[in-house]
Amino acid sequence: MKNWKRSSLLGLEDLSKAEIMTILETAESFISQKSNRISEGSLLKGYRIINLFMEPSTRTRVAFEIAAKSLGADVISITGEASSLTKGESLKDTALNVQALGADAIVIRHSSPGSPLLLSKIVDVPVINAGDGAHEHPSQGLLDIFTLRQKLGDVKGKKVTILGDILFSRVARSNLFGLLTLGAQVTLAGPSTLVPLEFEELGAKVTHNLQEALTDADAVMLLRIQHERQSATHFPSLSEYSKMFGLNKSVLDFMKKDASILHPGPINRGVEIESSIADSDKSLILDQVSNGIAVRMAILYLCSNVRKKI
Amino acid sequence: MKNWKRSSLLGLEDLSKAEIMTILETAESFISQKSNRISEGSLLKGYRIINLFMEPSTRTRVAFEIAAKSLGADVISITGEASSLTKGESLKDTALNVQALGADAIVIRHSSPGSPLLLSKIVDVPVINAGDGAHEHPSQGLLDIFTLRQKLGDVKGKKVTILGDILFSRVARSNLFGLLTLGAQVTLAGPSTLVPLEFEELGAKVTHNLQEALTDADAVMLLRIQHERQSATHFPSLSEYSKMFGLNKSVLDFMKKDASILHPGPINRGVEIESSIADSDKSLILDQVSNGIAVRMAILYLCSNVRKKI
Amino acid sequence: MKNWKRSSLLGLEDLSKAEIMTILETAESFISQKSNRISEGSLLKGYRIINLFMEPSTRTRVAFEIAAKSLGADVISITGEASSLTKGESLKDTALNVQALGADAIVIRHSSPGSPLLLSKIVDVPVINAGDGAHEHPSQGLLDIFTLRQKLGDVKGKKVTILGDILFSRVARSNLFGLLTLGAQVTLAGPSTLVPLEFEELGAKVTHNLQEALTDADAVMLLRIQHERQSATHFPSLSEYSKMFGLNKSVLDFMKKDASILHPGPINRGVEIESSIADSDKSLILDQVSNGIAVRMAILYLCSNVRKKI
Repeated sequence: MKNWKRSSLLGLEDLSKAEIMTILETAESFISQKSNRISEGSLLKGYRIINLFMEPSTRTRVAFEIAAKSLGADVISITGEASSLTKGESLKDTALNVQALGADAIVIRHSSPGSPLLLSKIVDVPVINAGDGAHEHPSQGLLDIFTLRQKLGDVKGKKVTILGDILFSRVARSNLFGLLTLGAQVTLAGPSTLVPLEFEELGAKVTHNLQEALTDADAVMLLRIQHERQSATHFPSLSEYSKMFGLNKSVLDFMKKDASILHPGPINRGVEIESSIADSDKSLILDQVSNGIAVRMAILYLCSNVRKKI
Repeated sequence: MKNWKRSSLLGLEDLSKAEIMTILETAESFISQKSNRISEGSLLKGYRIINLFMEPSTRTRVAFEIAAKSLGADVISITGEASSLTKGESLKDTALNVQALGADAIVIRHSSPGSPLLLSKIVDVPVINAGDGAHEHPSQGLLDIFTLRQKLGDVKGKKVTILGDILFSRVARSNLFGLLTLGAQVTLAGPSTLVPLEFEELGAKVTHNLQEALTDADAVMLLRIQHERQSATHFPSLSEYSKMFGLNKSVLDFMKKDASILHPGPINRGVEIESSIADSDKSLILDQVSNGIAVRMAILYLCSNVRKKI
Repeated sequence: MKNWKRSSLLGLEDLSKAEIMTILETAESFISQKSNRISEGSLLKGYRIINLFMEPSTRTRVAFEIAAKSLGADVISITGEASSLTKGESLKDTALNVQALGADAIVIRHSSPGSPLLLSKIVDVPVINAGDGAHEHPSQGLLDIFTLRQKLGDVKGKKVTILGDILFSRVARSNLFGLLTLGAQVTLAGPSTLVPLEFEELGAKVTHNLQEALTDADAVMLLRIQHERQSATHFPSLSEYSKMFGLNKSVLDFMKKDASILHPGPINRGVEIESSIADSDKSLILDQVSNGIAVRMAILYLCSNVRKKI
């Protein structure tokens, strides 16, 4: 692939426009071939992909498993902090062991920002970041952008609002980097405690006013309110959040008629989004899930191919 | 398959005799081809089957995994109520997400009766009920009937006694429906608190007398005493149950010499069945386990083929 | 394979030199074919291997999974004592059920010494011991010996020291049996509470003096200090152990320059081994992990082939 030279995908912050487009176009090719699953199933035949999920996750892990199997690879998922693979062991030792098991690629989720980067310096095989603390979640960012482009076409100049708990969100960060690189205008919105003005330095507009955030938006990306993680100081109450920043019918009044709504799931119906809106044709939520398979297939395929050539 | 038009299997209550026979004959064909596993392994090649087990289960889940893999399908098992796939999510949202992940069929176990039916109305792909509360467990019923027919031939007119905790048993219900449809005479037996007379309305004979239950029986299906679930009001004590309704050597005296014994496992040796009887040649318990693979292959194959034609 | 007639691998105690060499040479052939993973992938195509891990394990289970998949087999892993497969069930019933599920081979880890032997008497399919209490861990012993031979060549006459908690170590026992059979001179070393003199009856030298243990050694096999399992009576404190028996730079002074260091992992850096030594070129620790795949492929392949011929 002429525009893809990386054997690891650690985040979207460093990717060029051409690189992002290469992933999206490769994913597109997998979707258009959907009727022909069996031929895809030989692209990574004989490959051994190890999912190293050291933070709980079902959705992302399952999506990577399906993506790898769809390419014909063998997948081994190692989950749980309590895993004896990692007991009393540094991340470095775990990484070296996983490589010694013959991994052809490692997909890692870890609570520490930067752990995929660390891994990629230790092992010789592709490292795919499946979420590292509050840093990045590049496959989620890419599938969100892929889904946006399916609806809006080129996102250049389009207005995209990311709404919610921006402060600790790796999803927001990956989307922000990717969208800005593709030329979108990004607004970050939410309570001032969760969306500090400092984020403007990254190139986005910041607002704490919902109407201002939504009026011109071509698309709104909601983030899941992780109420189990919120500390009292940042976050007053679910019902207060819902009243001030939840997407409900009265909010629709000041949104564009054809604005799209995205959400990484699982959605809290009645909290960040009203049930009827989640089920309306504005919602691209299930498209995101579907596209997540093709996007992850593209990531695994591109990174594995770079390595093969070495 | 001329007699099979369903893309989902929700229970045995609604199946016609022809439909049940189609499943059993398809399973039979898988068993007779047993020597040729590799050719079976292409029947569902490229299929993606998602096991959604929202209630603990090892046996049934593993059997469905083996059945799916034996047909060449990719299997993804999602287990546990605590799964982040389902955290704070309705069953409907979970179902839509699983479909969006590209499932070609969903095998579901859930504690709520009717949840597979609900799912089948939401998603477009085959839904296989792997046990829904106290409602039905059709694959277990079918494998039991398959095993009975291996031993007895046609079950029409044969006398089958189901013995134990009928009240809350999905296994008993699925067997009852299937056996009656095939023309067997079914007796439900056990303590009066667990086997109410009202069950006669379903077409079975009810008795609380063990000798009466067993004297004429061609086969006895035991149910596992789930002592951890029994409430004090329905169930006095294990030893009392064992004395009154356990299968022991003295009970054999008033059973037919060639009567067969079935049990869905795991057996409580010394409670519902004496150890030596479980190991005798009367016992079809391990045949049930083996046949469970072929029967589940048949279910997955038939339902998937109906969908393909659409 | 002319020198291999066993369908089960229960331990190294009973294996002849020719048998051990057959496994090691078969493993060697898998490693030299490493570039051609796809052709290996048809050797056990259509096989169903069931991993029955009734004691927690990630490393060994994952290695067996990878080995089985690399040979093209389907693998089903059943883990956890709480598994409903085994609830209220004897090991015998579990084994019969796993066989009835159509297992072509069973890999078992169990806390009770002798349980793989028991299993092998109950079922007709190959049983591979993946660790049974303090008895044996033959695949670990074989991969250790394989790794030693890669470095030292023929181990006949070579001096190998096993250092640590010998008393309860199945790894030590399997290595001892295998190494003695191949003609190595084995020294068992560690605190007197963990390395009783009685072990000399097995054919090894016993010493509680570190310098004596290491001076002539061509290789040192460390054992993991399982501090969470040690009872106070056998084991004073981690720091005391580390000071007296840990491998640190000052210890290197009285070791042979080209002595090798092995460890079954995960290593406790700073306890049984100093970090810089673990990362030095003396260390064969990651080779052990890699070789573990090929050795387990050899075990699965050889035992399965014997059964096929029956």
